[in-house]
Amino acid sequence: MKRLLSTLLTIILTAYIANAQTQPVLNLDLANKIANAAQEKATSENWNVVITILDQGGNLVLLKKMDGTQIGSIEVAQLKAKTAFEFKRSTKVFEDMIKGGAVHLNTMPITAVEGGLPIFKDGQIIGAIGISGVTSAQDGIIAEAALKALALD
Amino acid sequence: MKRLLSTLLTIILTAYIANAQTQPVLNLDLANKIANAAQEKATSENWNVVITILDQGGNLVLLKKMDGTQIGSIEVAQLKAKTAFEFKRSTKVFEDMIKGGAVHLNTMPITAVEGGLPIFKDGQIIGAIGISGVTSAQDGIIAEAALKALALD
Amino acid sequence: MKRLLSTLLTIILTAYIANAQTQPVLNLDLANKIANAAQEKATSENWNVVITILDQGGNLVLLKKMDGTQIGSIEVAQLKAKTAFEFKRSTKVFEDMIKGGAVHLNTMPITAVEGGLPIFKDGQIIGAIGISGVTSAQDGIIAEAALKALALD
Amino acid sequence: MKRLLSTLLTIILTAYIANAQTQPVLNLDLANKIANAAQEKATSENWNVVITILDQGGNLVLLKKMDGTQIGSIEVAQLKAKTAFEFKRSTKVFEDMIKGGAVHLNTMPITAVEGGLPIFKDGQIIGAIGISGVTSAQDGIIAEAALKALALD
Repeated sequence: MKRLLSTLLTIILTAYIANAQTQPVLNLDLANKIANAAQEKATSENWNVVITILDQGGNLVLLKKMDGTQIGSIEVAQLKAKTAFEFKRSTKVFEDMIKGGAVHLNTMPITAVEGGLPIFKDGQIIGAIGISGVTSAQDGIIAEAALKALALD
Repeated sequence: MKRLLSTLLTIILTAYIANAQTQPVLNLDLANKIANAAQEKATSENWNVVITILDQGGNLVLLKKMDGTQIGSIEVAQLKAKTAFEFKRSTKVFEDMIKGGAVHLNTMPITAVEGGLPIFKDGQIIGAIGISGVTSAQDGIIAEAALKALALD
Repeated sequence: MKRLLSTLLTIILTAYIANAQTQPVLNLDLANKIANAAQEKATSENWNVVITILDQGGNLVLLKKMDGTQIGSIEVAQLKAKTAFEFKRSTKVFEDMIKGGAVHLNTMPITAVEGGLPIFKDGQIIGAIGISGVTSAQDGIIAEAALKALALD
Repeated sequence: MKRLLSTLLTIILTAYIANAQTQPVLNLDLANKIANAAQEKATSENWNVVITILDQGGNLVLLKKMDGTQIGSIEVAQLKAKTAFEFKRSTKVFEDMIKGGAVHLNTMPITAVEGGLPIFKDGQIIGAIGISGVTSAQDGIIAEAALKALALD
């Protein structure tokens, strides 16, 4: 009996420690699903955009440029995703702060334009999405729609 | 006769379809013409500028530095053309937006100063022109005059 | 009837001339097909790689990072595609030249490692593919298999 | 006699001071002449290249991309001219040194590939020419032909 309890405790503790030292991941399969949801929303609105998805380490997993999207959006979509990932918040938060008077934030290594959102799972950040191509408000609508379709936020 | 017409129609349709998957190009000959028109306008006003022309892929085709132009304009003219090409709009649009309060756009990888214009042909972007050297309003006048002289916009 | 033929000929000639000043494009649909062929080959060999596709202007259209691929390959795959596009040849050509003694080419802005191939259509460059993740010889096998599957070269 | 001596002294001193405090310049007119000579040679050989001319300060005065030239040559032509200007010698000198065993020179901020030449006038450097697009030996032939046509070296 003692031995059984001891074994059980070991298993529970191992699991607990393992859990404490792991991180949920955003793999290519999930990235594809998010990007497809974004592309579906963009297509339904007749908008052309670049879609980028970063993983739990902030590294690029997927980038798709829809036909006709302005070339500058290839870089801007990545920059929005980077900002959302690195600061764990919507790029719109920074946009609003700067518009609201915090103009010193222009010296920060951020892209403070709506269209970038962090992706969370169980309270932990697992990546980010960056959209660019139409107005930044429209870019933001696509990013939100994509995460909502996958029940992420 | 019917057969001839059928063949002709097939050729026309094939050419039409091929055209749908092609893009108009801006070659050196056209770049020279645009740059000459720009230089003529600048000379007539006694202005010294750097003139840059990008092609349909956003790559540099022609750069000319008129005597006496400030050295910084070599880079700035290229940056204005890059912004106009990548975002398919006059750099003045961004200048006006930022001046008008959209100061968060200072975090974008753009050069938001008048003097850069995209070049369109049949509704498709085929390149961009960037002018720098005098005041940005004067740079813009040269860029517009050059495109107008070639009946481009 | 003569007038009809004359009109038709005019249309054909106009289309032909227009075509001479246009460039074939690589759109997202074709990029997806090429990338899927690459991913299929990689999966069949149990290899993990990053796949990048550039368009006719050298701009990124698609990037996919297969699960488990080393992070460095995100940049390297893009650099290989860039080199293949910019110099219209396989990156292996540069690799072989440098290995063969042309060590001064190490001072060139190129990535001289197998795995990057230009994509041609009707003799014109329409883009490039870059693969990185396994050995460079294996990266090259994937790139070639992808283009072969689409009857491109 | 006194007056003649005085005049001669004035001329000599003026020439001495002028020489000591001025630098011959390479203006747009001369750059155009050199580039035209280069383009003529390239055209006569049916070669496509990018031609760049730097002035006496090492700054870009003229860049021309002939139709069909590989995109990578836009950067490489500039890099060759930069190396030739900054080290006052043909880029072939560095190429030969590295090929001959001085492989540590690969750590230098140079582009050690034939096709870049400094431009001298009266023993003073007044600029540089950089050619890229065909083989580096052919690039070199064009650069030399251009300077020879203008009786520069």
